[in-house]
Formats: sequence, structure tokens, C-alpha cells
Amino acid sequence: MTARFTDGRVPDPGIRRLFAPAGRWQRWLDVEAALALSEAELGVIPSASGAAIAAAATFDRLDIDRVARGIAATSHPLMALVRELSREAGDDHGGWVHWGATSQNITQTGDLLVIRDAHILLLGLLSDVLRAAGDLAERGADMVAPGRTHGQHAVPITFGFKVAAWIDELCRSADRLRQVEPRLFTAMLGGAVGTFASLGDVGPAVQAQVAERLALRSMIVPSRATADAFAEYVCLLAVLAGSVGRIAREIYAMMSTELGEAAESAPTTTVGSSTMPHKKNPQLTDNCIAISAQVRALAPLALEAMLQDHEVSGAYTEMMEDAVEQAAVLSGDLLTRMRMILSGLQLDRKRMRHNLTLTGGLISSEAVMLALGTVIGRQQAHEVVRQAARQVHPGLPFGETLRRDHRVTDHLTAEELDQLLDPLRHVGQSAEIAHASAIRAAAVAEEIDTRRRDGAARNGHAAPSVVKARADLADAEVVAPI
Amino acid sequence: MTARFTDGRVPDPGIRRLFAPAGRWQRWLDVEAALALSEAELGVIPSASGAAIAAAATFDRLDIDRVARGIAATSHPLMALVRELSREAGDDHGGWVHWGATSQNITQTGDLLVIRDAHILLLGLLSDVLRAAGDLAERGADMVAPGRTHGQHAVPITFGFKVAAWIDELCRSADRLRQVEPRLFTAMLGGAVGTFASLGDVGPAVQAQVAERLALRSMIVPSRATADAFAEYVCLLAVLAGSVGRIAREIYAMMSTELGEAAESAPTTTVGSSTMPHKKNPQLTDNCIAISAQVRALAPLALEAMLQDHEVSGAYTEMMEDAVEQAAVLSGDLLTRMRMILSGLQLDRKRMRHNLTLTGGLISSEAVMLALGTVIGRQQAHEVVRQAARQVHPGLPFGETLRRDHRVTDHLTAEELDQLLDPLRHVGQSAEIAHASAIRAAAVAEEIDTRRRDGAARNGHAAPSVVKARADLADAEVVAPI
Amino acid sequence: MTARFTDGRVPDPGIRRLFAPAGRWQRWLDVEAALALSEAELGVIPSASGAAIAAAATFDRLDIDRVARGIAATSHPLMALVRELSREAGDDHGGWVHWGATSQNITQTGDLLVIRDAHILLLGLLSDVLRAAGDLAERGADMVAPGRTHGQHAVPITFGFKVAAWIDELCRSADRLRQVEPRLFTAMLGGAVGTFASLGDVGPAVQAQVAERLALRSMIVPSRATADAFAEYVCLLAVLAGSVGRIAREIYAMMSTELGEAAESAPTTTVGSSTMPHKKNPQLTDNCIAISAQVRALAPLALEAMLQDHEVSGAYTEMMEDAVEQAAVLSGDLLTRMRMILSGLQLDRKRMRHNLTLTGGLISSEAVMLALGTVIGRQQAHEVVRQAARQVHPGLPFGETLRRDHRVTDHLTAEELDQLLDPLRHVGQSAEIAHASAIRAAAVAEEIDTRRRDGAARNGHAAPSVVKARADLADAEVVAPI
Amino acid sequence: MTARFTDGRVPDPGIRRLFAPAGRWQRWLDVEAALALSEAELGVIPSASGAAIAAAATFDRLDIDRVARGIAATSHPLMALVRELSREAGDDHGGWVHWGATSQNITQTGDLLVIRDAHILLLGLLSDVLRAAGDLAERGADMVAPGRTHGQHAVPITFGFKVAAWIDELCRSADRLRQVEPRLFTAMLGGAVGTFASLGDVGPAVQAQVAERLALRSMIVPSRATADAFAEYVCLLAVLAGSVGRIAREIYAMMSTELGEAAESAPTTTVGSSTMPHKKNPQLTDNCIAISAQVRALAPLALEAMLQDHEVSGAYTEMMEDAVEQAAVLSGDLLTRMRMILSGLQLDRKRMRHNLTLTGGLISSEAVMLALGTVIGRQQAHEVVRQAARQVHPGLPFGETLRRDHRVTDHLTAEELDQLLDPLRHVGQSAEIAHASAIRAAAVAEEIDTRRRDGAARNGHAAPSVVKARADLADAEVVAPI
Repeated sequence: MTARFTDGRVPDPGIRRLFAPAGRWQRWLDVEAALALSEAELGVIPSASGAAIAAAATFDRLDIDRVARGIAATSHPLMALVRELSREAGDDHGGWVHWGATSQNITQTGDLLVIRDAHILLLGLLSDVLRAAGDLAERGADMVAPGRTHGQHAVPITFGFKVAAWIDELCRSADRLRQVEPRLFTAMLGGAVGTFASLGDVGPAVQAQVAERLALRSMIVPSRATADAFAEYVCLLAVLAGSVGRIAREIYAMMSTELGEAAESAPTTTVGSSTMPHKKNPQLTDNCIAISAQVRALAPLALEAMLQDHEVSGAYTEMMEDAVEQAAVLSGDLLTRMRMILSGLQLDRKRMRHNLTLTGGLISSEAVMLALGTVIGRQQAHEVVRQAARQVHPGLPFGETLRRDHRVTDHLTAEELDQLLDPLRHVGQSAEIAHASAIRAAAVAEEIDTRRRDGAARNGHAAPSVVKARADLADAEVVAPI
Repeated sequence: MTARFTDGRVPDPGIRRLFAPAGRWQRWLDVEAALALSEAELGVIPSASGAAIAAAATFDRLDIDRVARGIAATSHPLMALVRELSREAGDDHGGWVHWGATSQNITQTGDLLVIRDAHILLLGLLSDVLRAAGDLAERGADMVAPGRTHGQHAVPITFGFKVAAWIDELCRSADRLRQVEPRLFTAMLGGAVGTFASLGDVGPAVQAQVAERLALRSMIVPSRATADAFAEYVCLLAVLAGSVGRIAREIYAMMSTELGEAAESAPTTTVGSSTMPHKKNPQLTDNCIAISAQVRALAPLALEAMLQDHEVSGAYTEMMEDAVEQAAVLSGDLLTRMRMILSGLQLDRKRMRHNLTLTGGLISSEAVMLALGTVIGRQQAHEVVRQAARQVHPGLPFGETLRRDHRVTDHLTAEELDQLLDPLRHVGQSAEIAHASAIRAAAVAEEIDTRRRDGAARNGHAAPSVVKARADLADAEVVAPI
Repeated sequence: MTARFTDGRVPDPGIRRLFAPAGRWQRWLDVEAALALSEAELGVIPSASGAAIAAAATFDRLDIDRVARGIAATSHPLMALVRELSREAGDDHGGWVHWGATSQNITQTGDLLVIRDAHILLLGLLSDVLRAAGDLAERGADMVAPGRTHGQHAVPITFGFKVAAWIDELCRSADRLRQVEPRLFTAMLGGAVGTFASLGDVGPAVQAQVAERLALRSMIVPSRATADAFAEYVCLLAVLAGSVGRIAREIYAMMSTELGEAAESAPTTTVGSSTMPHKKNPQLTDNCIAISAQVRALAPLALEAMLQDHEVSGAYTEMMEDAVEQAAVLSGDLLTRMRMILSGLQLDRKRMRHNLTLTGGLISSEAVMLALGTVIGRQQAHEVVRQAARQVHPGLPFGETLRRDHRVTDHLTAEELDQLLDPLRHVGQSAEIAHASAIRAAAVAEEIDTRRRDGAARNGHAAPSVVKARADLADAEVVAPI
Repeated sequence: MTARFTDGRVPDPGIRRLFAPAGRWQRWLDVEAALALSEAELGVIPSASGAAIAAAATFDRLDIDRVARGIAATSHPLMALVRELSREAGDDHGGWVHWGATSQNITQTGDLLVIRDAHILLLGLLSDVLRAAGDLAERGADMVAPGRTHGQHAVPITFGFKVAAWIDELCRSADRLRQVEPRLFTAMLGGAVGTFASLGDVGPAVQAQVAERLALRSMIVPSRATADAFAEYVCLLAVLAGSVGRIAREIYAMMSTELGEAAESAPTTTVGSSTMPHKKNPQLTDNCIAISAQVRALAPLALEAMLQDHEVSGAYTEMMEDAVEQAAVLSGDLLTRMRMILSGLQLDRKRMRHNLTLTGGLISSEAVMLALGTVIGRQQAHEVVRQAARQVHPGLPFGETLRRDHRVTDHLTAEELDQLLDPLRHVGQSAEIAHASAIRAAAVAEEIDTRRRDGAARNGHAAPSVVKARADLADAEVVAPI
């Protein structure tokens, strides 16, 4: 994907790096290590071989150039790495490397460790975004501004209410991302086609042990052709991207010259236009709108990638790998930017107030109709007020047309009418909802952070993983990397 | 959408009908009724008006032609229905119809009742599909056939194992569809922009009561611009469609002249081709492959429809309504067909056996490699067997090339080799997994059916809904319609 | 697809009807007729049989209920119709019906006649839209308004310039739709798999004659699995929908309370909101935004439908038929609405003028920079003006900050500055481009209409089709139906 | 995007490199050079400045690190490059750099030069693919194999006929890619919003000159918000990807164990599976199937990116740039692989012959029906043959069931029946079509190559571009880079 011109001032969230060859190879080696240790423990391979293989399964001990050359020669993702690992494990043990496994067992399970690392980073970013949104909801809880439906002023809201609706969507995404974990983060070690034929009756136990070592669930039917959880994950990231895209578009609109209610912060060195020196353009929101579309466009790719044939087809696996990697990387870029936008968002309370006056009072039509409706009935009041509203023009405000209509003045006093026409009195529960949402955002953020700290996010259930046998694997890989 | 030529023999699942104008209007009236009753109970409108409005809110009592003409005149979805309901409620009560609500409150909440009805039908179909798949897994648990990866024979499986992988995907979809319920099935009664300005402090209580009456959840932030749960729902139906599409493609492949391992049942009057009298073509599987693509194509539409602006835009609401309706209707057609396919699937055990022989024994290469590998190491065994495999040709089966290679015969006896070359001995846990999956399928189906019976599927939590005040509403609308 | 609430005031473009069963069946019969006549002329079947079949191939002469029952019994799209046609043709001739053809030959070629009818209607609508846009460009050629980039005021434009850009896109779509015709509108009569095996050496001649009779091109390789032109067509309609969607979004934005530069016309009976009596919402533009997304969402479906397997698969044909039909029907609804919007668009010249003042003069920053740049160099001028712009606030307009800066006043007189700050002087070629585009729109519309009249649009080349033998076929089918 | 494991043996087509920062920056500098030269010639800027700027506009003369730091500081794509170019042009001339232009004028026009370079490479690859396909059609023109519809044996074809259908699709893509050129390759130099306000009346002439220098067309309405041609281009690449994906899927199927009619060539060092030593998997076809999906998934992104707002929005520009770049890069990878596949495809004539026998003669049912139909009528013959076909089973071939049916034997002699049952006699025009398509493929390839040599592909019309003033720009940039 094309670089973005804001890259210089937006920190990289670290997800790109996880998917780089070095990151993926180490995760594949981790799976080979966990496999060897588990097989050793269950008596499938010699005990010493398990330990030797696990010890050798470190990126640093391998000749990576040789692996790269091997991949080029074989056009195979793993065989060269397995050979190198065998070599490094030594003559007595190398023959037991990769025992009973097919390549995809290693690459898919290893990639899931990468994806889980990315997932934990994404959750962290989502938590940050929620906290920033919570602060913003609080900041804007009482800032009254026009509510707009179909692009038209409707009734007043407060800015905090608007943010509350954003928080609501984001919290549901947090829910979804938690719920998908046990479906997604599973070890798949069923061998050539998933029947455990290469390991016999002990097969399921080997897979269960590997899963436990890697703090994954054990796949119920370890078919290589099963990809629904990957597609679901991409779709859920796309839903999150939909929410973030909506927020970005909203801020973009509020930044417009005509609205001017909010503005992205930017360093003073930022240039808006090469030909219009006054321009202060949205930039991070532009990025977010674009990235949102890019992530959403991966959903059909991931859904098509479910259409595996027979016991597996590399074509569909390749599609899915691409969709998941892109979705994760782009989501990281997206959330990082949204965090910056929300944290630094400038609000213009005065402008919001000013904008409330733009319709000459029409923004209060509902309030008037309801007050009138209690006396003459809602539908009739709707018609009376609608007629009054149609007469409004720049020189004739709504209050005036109402005051001229006896069907109104028969039932409402001048004072009542004044109060009804005050937009500040017609914001309903905006502030209460904003405050409550700020608390909810903080609580959900806290919950995410707690789960990340506890490692629960890793395997989708509460119990912490028990990693046996290899300390560095436990340290480096299973403990959350952040 | 174009009619399908199998429509004559496939029952309509009843979802299309739910979305027809009559179905939607009644649901909208149900929401108006629940609103009036709740407002009456909370003292917002006169008690007698609540009862009168609820009583009038029946499709049968209204002049539908007048409503239709009103819609044409106003270009507004609801106003004409509200007027007609007001008229029918009578002079004393009609003025309190739709009190405090905006149209989308009624149409969206009412449509969610329609969608929930559709959802319950879809769950029922999924349950049926799971049962049929369970039976099929059981039937094929021991039928040995070639496993195929990348279109090539790999190692043997049993047909039941293949079905187990389908069941696995479908069970996860059942999970997902259960988890989305509390997010999706919510009452949205916040008024013009969601702030409850029209109802004041009692607003949240009104929404909560309406929700309870309709066995929905109460929306936390009742913003009209919030659409993430709809998008999620379409995505989840697309994931389900991905799974069903994969199953259909697999059956299509197994029906091919060259494989011939399975066949769709069809009435004897079915014609395959107008020019090739012998043709017995897949038809329902063709439908399923096509419908799967159609449903999946709705995911980007639903995701784009999340991009609401400000407090709502009718354009995006319109997109989403279309995406959800199409996804539900198509999913019904899809599952109905898949149920028929799986229930009637003909399996050809003999042909599967025959197909095992097509590679001249190569399908057993893994078994030989592993046996050899325990002696000479896995990677070296891989190379030895690979060389032997390369020499195989129609006149020279794999067993023969192995027997000629002393690197093999040094370590394996003729009898051992014979056993290793028997594909029936290398199916691993295929049968066990098939049996377990049949049980799981039945259990998940049972759980779905129980939840549908208990009404839990309606509101996403275990507690049955408490519907007060209007008996026929309770009977007709809240109890599952099937 | 869901009905739209504006259907009462928007005429149906007539495309839906073309795809209804009656419309398709008649087109299929037309192809059977053309086939029989061609085969008779080439001596493949008896001459009398050709005439008899052609005479019988009329919807009105057939027992349609029997056909419908036959379809239900056979699950086959065509066989029942062929039988009915055979019966009607009589004992001596019925045996020659459908000679040498496979069903898809008839259904695909016949559906292409339907699609061509739809295409001609779409071209007519596009022509109307272009004329309306041309008038609008002319009307707004001199109305100065803020140009906006990234949501910020940039430099002035005229409204007509904006419309010119729309016209530009639409003209290119007219080009595309013309260029696709010879690729799309082709007769496919190659028999079971496209090899002409059923007809022998005369096969290509039969196809060529059928094509000529139906004013189609003859397919070069009549493979049933070839679908690229259909996918292209859906993509081109999606590109057109992208353009129309952009126009609709622009008008939606210009209708917003804050911009107020343009407004959709609507009958006075239209209701905007059930709770806010003052609301005058966009409605047709909402429809257009939604339909644009719906059409665009069909592109991936059509592209996936290209993935036919072997010599054909019904699943992919089914996908494509759905994509094409939906794209055509929705495009008709879209263009009909856009025609209405553009024809009736209300422009507010005063409001545009007012909006030019919103930045306190900053909209003229480029003009000032360029004038200054001729003296001190562009990049330095950019910096000077940028600094002046940063000081502007509601109480301090741009002119004032410039007048206080000697780096400006050293080079520009007060009078020069005043002129530079007048936005009406900085619209460049806006008006000229608007006028030229109005002429271009009319010319392209005229060209479309001429081609439609001449029938050239039917077959993608200039020569009029020569329809022989069957007068009513010539009248009813080949002459443009509008 | 994820690397592919075949990268070691597939040459990079060189498109990725074109889009790298260095490639794009040089193209942007080329546009600045052309702009300065044109403005100098038209008297807009001093003549010496034009020459000085053009001379300085070379990547090699600039301090690229400073540019990179400038981009980071400004978050602006071009400003830093413009400053650096100004500096390098020197005090007397630097002030005239970028005169009258806005950044997108330079970046979009420059990127179009990059895209055109990519386009020329893609056309070259398409030409290669066509030549390879032509050779293949010729090689397989007479190889009889089963035609398959809906996965079932239908009637015989020759392999060459199958390839002819591929060629047909590819030739239409060549047409499309030629036709889009004049729409796509246009210079956009209208300034801040496209009105030429910064240049006045000479603006259109400047744009025309720049266009001529760069062998582009001059954009009719140089609005920055116009993006339809980009979306069209991505869609056309997606259609091409659809065709190539279909071919790849077909070859994948023909490589399957059960069909075995064709096979991808691969180096002997290639490894199919880490656990099944015998496996010879499709690899390049897998890649092609995956890449096809990846390209097709960009169509909705590009279509959404058309939805620019007002006079431009960076968000949509960013989306589109990403879509176009990815589509071009992926298409290059796709065509490179397809060229390798087709060039090296192994065909198994014997296996094809064998496969013809798999239905026990049913593949000849159409031939028998037609012969019988000439006597007893087509529809009756269909029924007779259908009944005979239904009795066929492994022990009872079709010929036998026919010979037992007097309704057949009354009309056909034993000898006639034998001939009708010979699949080699029922391939129709397969060979003729294959030969003709081979010639057509070569001709279209030749035409592409000629156009590329003549430079016509650069600007979509026949006249060679006239590049004035700067020799190295002419050499390096306008002459096709391959």
C-alpha cells in the first residue's frame, strides 16, 4: 500500500513488523518447538529430541540466508526452514523435526500467534481510542450544537451526545473482538488433511498439548479447509473500520468552513496546500476515511477465501492470509490515527452556539409542536407548525410566524413560546447520556487493559495459559508483547 | 432477484413474506401500540388513549388503500400510516398517536421485529441443516475416500470427516448468530435525534418499557445513525453463506463425472439438458453456489451503509435496509436448499474406494515416509519416498518402485509395506471425528430449537420476555411465529 | 429490493418489466424463431418448418400455465417452453424446434435482447440527464460560489463549473456504453459446448444468420463459459453509478442547512419528518446515494461470476444473470431520479454569494500569493501569505492582516489588494468551461438519441440491421422499443 | 501484500518499482519541468526560468533526504519537493517553480505517467500471454477431450477449443485497455480547483502544452474531483483478472488427480508437500487464483473512491491511488505467472482420450439424439435417448442400451450407431476455431507490440507525441521504458 504523507508524525503501531518474514518465521519455529516438546512428552518422539529441537527453534541460531535460498529453490514456504531446523537440532534429533505435521499446521498456527500479537496491539489501540472518546464526551457533554438529520438542522444535541453514539459502536466492537477469540485462536495440528493419520490415536492429545503450550484452543475438527473464523475476523475489523470511518467523516464535516465546530490538531509546520496558503486541511481524518474503505474492501476477499475446495487449496489460503494481514495492518494505522484525532480534537463551543441560530428558530419546531400537541393533538399540531415553518425566510424568523398565528397563540403564551424557542432547553438527555458514556468508555477500556494484562485476550477464556518446558518461549511469546 | 428454476420444488422459507409491506406495516403498528401503552402507563399520555391506540393498531382495522395513497402523496414511509392510525383511534385519542417519536423510531424498531422473525426462521433452517449434516456424517463415517489437497490426492479420509468439518463451521455460525442477538435486537425510541428531548426525563423509561413489551433490549444510546449491528448481521450471514457455498462447491465437485462420489437427489421429471439427454446436472448446489455469492456481495454494501452522517441520513438507512432484507431472504433460500441437498445426498461408497486406487498407491506416500522416518529420520525419508514417487507411472505402481529401492527395503518388510500401502489403514481419527461431530451437530441443533421454543432467541438473553397489556400483541408477535 | 417511498412520484423507467418472465420468454421465443428461420434458409431444417415455428413463437399463442407447470416439474428454464412451442408448431414441424441448440443458446441470446432493450432505455435516460445537466451548467455558469477542497473553502468557482465536471464524467460513461456494445450484444449459438457439433460445418453460418436477424454480432468463440462482457457491463454501470452517486452527494451537501446553495424540488404534499414539521429533506438525492451503492456492490458479484468452470457452470450463469438484471433495473431507477433532481434543481445565487464571505477573505489567498509571487517569488509569497492567513479571526479579516504586513504592502497597492480580494474576479475559466460543457452535453445527448433512433445502439455498429422473413419480429423486437 | 513462495522463480515484472517513491518523485519532477517549459514558452514565466527549472528537475540533482524530512515535517506530499526544486533552480528562477499549479496537478499527472509506464508493461505481458495461448491453442487443436458442463461430461471438445475461448476473452481485454487510454491518460493542470484561475486565459493553453510534452491528452474539465477513468481502469484490470482467474481455475481442475489432462511445469527442486513426498501441486495457478481475487476485490474500493466531495477530498484521492497501484502491481504479478503457466503447460493427450470413455458412451447422447431426431423429431428423440441413458451403469454401456431399444434400431443401423458413438467424430468446429484463434491471438499480440513500439499506447491515439525542449525527458520518459 502506498505510504501516507502523515507517516512522519504518526507512530507506527508495530503490526507491520509482526508480519514481516522474521516475525512469522520465529512464530513458525515456536510451533515446531511446541510440537516437538509435546510429542516428546507424549512419547511420540525421543525426549531428548524434543528438548534439542525446542532449543534450536530460534531465529538467531539459524542460517537465514540458506533458508531464503531454500525457499526460492523449492517454492515452498516451510520445507527449507524445517531442513535448517533439522540441521541445527543435530544428527540425532533433526529427523524428528516437524514429526507428523504438514506445513500448514505450522504456518497457520504460527501465523495465528502473529495475528494474536496483532490483535492484542489492536485491542490496546481500541482501549486508547475509547479513553480518548470518553474524555471527549465529557468535554463536550454540555456543548449545545445543532443535531442534523438528512443534512438539515433537526433538534439540538450536545457534542457529547454525538460522541456517546461513537462510544456505543466502539464498545460493541470490543465485545465482538472478545467473542471471536475462542473461535479464531486455535491450534491446527491434524496433519496432512486433518485426520491425525500421521500420529494415530495420540494425535488429538498432541494437538491439545501444543495448543496449551501456545495458549491457544485446540481445534475441534482440524481441517485445513476451515477458514470461517478468519473471514469473521476480517469482517469484524471491517465493522470496526466502518465505525471509525463514520467518526472520521463526521469530524471532517465538522471541520468544514461552514460548520467549523471542531478541528483536528496539527503541528504548526503542516502545510495544507501548495497554492492556497490559508488552507488548514483535515489530514488524519482523510487518512481514516481512506483506510476505512481499504479495510472494508477486504471483507469480500476474505469471504471469497472461505471457498476452499476438498481438504484444502493453497489459492484460498493465500487469499485469506493476504486479507487478514492487510486488515490487521490497516486497522492498526486506522486506530492510531483516530486516537490522535480524538485526543487532540479542538472544539468550538461558540461556533456551535452560533450555528444553532442558522434556521431562524426552526430548530425548535418539534418543541413547539409537542407543546401545542398536548392541547390540540399531535397530528394537528404538526400541520399548524409545518405551515408556520414554511413561511420563515431570512427576514422573518420562526418565532415571528408563530406569534402571528392564532392557532398557536390561542394555546401558548408569549413567555411559553420564548422558552420553547430556546434551543438550549431542548437537548433532552444529551448530557446525561454523554456522562454515562464517558464512564462506560473508561470501563470498557479498563476491561480491555485488564484482559490484556492477564493474558485472557490471548486465548479467549479467563484461565491463564500454562506454558511448560521452555522458558524463553513462555517469556517471549506467550506473555503479551506489550 | 431473478427467480430460480428450482422454485417449483423448493419450499419458500417464508422470509420474503415477512418483509412485504403488510408484514412491515403491522410490525410498525405493533411498535406504535407498545409506545402508546408504555406512555400511558408512565403517565405521558392519557391512559384511555394508550388502550385505544393499541386496539386500533391492527392492519385489519385500517384503510390500507388510503395509507398507500398517502405514502405516494407524502413520499414519507410512515406519516400516512400514523394519520390513519390517529383517525381510527378516534378524536379523543388520535392526537396522542406517535407521541414523542420520530418515524425511524417506529420503522427501525418495527423492522427489527421483522428481522427477528426472519432470524428465528433462519435459525430453524440452520438447525435442520445441522441435523441433516449430522446424519450424513454418521452415514459416511466409515466411507473411505481420497483426501485431496490442492486438487491432488493427499492421504485418505472418510466422507464423514469431510462432513465433520462442515458441521464445525456451521456450529460456529450458530454461536455467532446467538451472540449478535443482544447487539442487534434493540428498541430505539430516542426521538428526533436520539436525545429523548421530546419526552424529557421519562424518555429512557419509555424506551425501556417499549423494549420490554416487544422483548427487545433497550438501546443504550438511541442514535439514529448507529448501524454497526446491522452491518455485523449482514457480515455474519455472509460468513454463513461462505460456509454453505463451500459445502455446495464440494458437493458439485464430488458429483462430477470424474469423481462421482456423491449426487444430489432430484425428482425423475427433472431435465438436465435440452440437447444432451443423458445429463443429470447439479441444480440445488448450483443455486447454493450462486446464492452464496449473492449474500457475500452484500457485505460491502452493509459496511458502506454504516457511514451515516451527523445524526442520520436517509440514504444510508435505505442502503442498510436493502442489504439486511436481501441477506435475510437469500439466506433463507440458501439454507432451505442446503437442507434438501444434505437430506437427500446419495453417496457412492464403491466409487470412493475405486478412486483411492487412482494414484497407483501414491496416496500412501505419507504412511511409508513416516514408517521409514522412524528409522532414518523424517527429512531423509521424505527425500527417499519423493524419489520413489517420481518414478511411478501407469505401468509401475508405487509399491513396485518402493520394493525396488533398498533404502526402503532395508528397513521395511514386504508385509509392512503392504500394510502401509493399504489406504484403509491410514484414515487416522476420521471416523471418530465424524461420530463426535454428528453428536455435536444434533446437540447444537437441539440447543437452537430449545432457545427458539423458549423465545430466548428473540432477545438474546435467557429470561423470557414479559409482555403486558395487549394479549394479541403478545400472542401474535412475540411468540415465535413458527 | 425494498420499495422506495418516493415511488409514488417517480415514474418507473420500464426496465423491471423487461426482465419479468413474460418479457424474457418472448425474447427466448424470438431467438427460437430466428434460429428456425435461419436453419430453414440454410437447408438444415425443412423450409415450411422454419416458417411454422417462427409463426408459433409468440407468447400469445402458447399456453403459459402449462409452461409454468412444466418448469416446476423439470426444474429447467427452457424445456417446457420448447415443448409447448413444438406442440403449437404442429406435428409436422414441432420436431425441428430448438434444432441443434442448447438451452443457454436461447436463454442467453434472448436475455441479451432484453438487456439491449434495457440498455436503450438507459441510454435514453442518460441522454435526458445530460440535457438537464447542460441546462443547469448554463443556468449556473455565472453564479459564483466557494470552491471547496478537503471540506475547506479553497478559491471561488461558479456553480456551472461544478456541473461541467459532472457532465465530463457522464459523457465518458456515454462513450463507454457505446464501446461495450459490440462486445456485449452477440448471438451465441454454438450448441452444447460451443463447438457447433450439432450443426456441423453450417453451424457458424447459422449463428451468423441468427445474429443478423436479431441485429446482434455473431460470437467469435461461442463458448457458454465466456462472461467477460457481462462483467464489464456491470462494472460500467457501476462506474456510471459512481458518477451519479457523487453528484447526488454533492447536491445533498449543497442542500444542507449550512450551505443552502441548492435544493431538490418536491411537491408541496411531501413530508420531511413526522416529528419536526419544518424539515424539507433531500429525498431523491437520498435515493440516488443509496442506489449508487447498491449498483456498485454488484461489481464484485459480476466479477466473481466470470469464474466459470470447464465449458459452463449454471451456478456462475445464475450469479451473472442476477448481477446484470439488478444493475440494469437499479440504474434505471437511479437515472430517472437524477433526471428529476437536475431538471428541478433550485439554485440560490444569493446564498452562494454570502458563503463567499465566510472566511473573511481567505478564499482569495491564492490570488494574493500569485500577485505577490510575481515580485518576490512563489514559495516566499506562499510563506508570507500563510503567516497573514494564520492571524485571521472573526474580528480581523484577511484584508486587514495583509494591509498590516509591509512585505505585502511594499509590493501591492491598496487598490490592487482590493481587487485581489474580490472573489468574483478569481473564477478563472469557470464560466467558459460551463458554457462549453453545456454545448457538449447537448451534443452527446443528441448523438445518443440519433444512434437510438437509427438503431445503431442495438448492435454496436453504424449499419442498420437487416431483418428478414418475419415482419412482426422486425417490428416488435428490433426497432427500438421506445 | 504478503510475499509469495514462488517469487524465487518468477521474474518481477517491474511495476512495483515504478510506484516506489523514487519513481513517483521523478515523474512529478517531469511534470514540473513540462509545466515550467510550457509556461516559459507561453510567456507566463521568464524563458530562462523555464529552462533552469527543467534542468534542475532531476531526481539526481536534489537532496532527497531533505525532501523526506520536509515531507515528515509538513505532512504534505509535494511541498518539500517543490522547495528543494526551487532551491536547486537557483535564486533567480526558483520563485517560478510550480507556478499556477496546485499539488494534485503535479502528483496526479505525474502518477499517470507512472501508471502509463505500468500500463505499457501490462500490455507487453498481455501480448506475451496471448502468444503463449495461441501456441497452446495450436498445440491442442486436435486433442479431443470431454467437454464438461455443470461438472458433467457433455459432448467432446478439443483442448484447443477451450484455449480459443480464453483467447477470445483476452482479446476483448486488449480492446478495453486500448479504449480506456484516451480517457485515462490526461494532464490535469487547472490549478486549485480546476478553473485555471491562477493562470487566467492562458491556462488551457498551458495545460495543452504540458499534455503535449508528456504525450498525454489535455483534460476537458480539469476538476480534481473527477476520478471515473481511474475507477474504470481498476474495473478493467479486474475483468482481465477475472479472465485469468478462470483460466487458472480451469488448469487447476485439469491438473487434478482425477482429470490429469494438463500440468503446470515446475523446476525439479520444487517441493509439493512437507508430509506427502509424492505431491506435485499447482503453485503458479494457485497464485493466479489468489491474485485474481485480490485484484477483483479492488473494484469496490475504486468505485467508492469516485465519491469525491465538492472540488476534491484527499480521502478519496488516497483510496483511489491505493486501488490503482495495487491493481497494477498485482496484475503484473498475475500476467507474469500466467505467461509461465501457458508457455510450459504439459498436455496429456492420452489421458484426455481415456477420459472420453468414462461415461460408457453417454458423451455421445447428443449425436445419437440428433440423428434420431431427423427421423422422429427432436423432442421425441430427446425422450427416447434420455430413457436409454438412464439405464446405463458400469456393466451396461450406452451403446448396449441403445441397441436394445427398437425405437432406436428401427431408424439407425448398427454401423451408423457405432459412428455416432465415436466421440472423435462429434467435435464440430473445435479444431477450426482453435486454429483461427491461434492466428487471432498472434495478430492481437502483434498489434499490441506495434502500438507499444510506436508509442501509441501512451496517449491513446495514433499520432506520435511531440516532445519539445528537453531531450532527456523525451528519451527517458516518453519512449516506452521497455
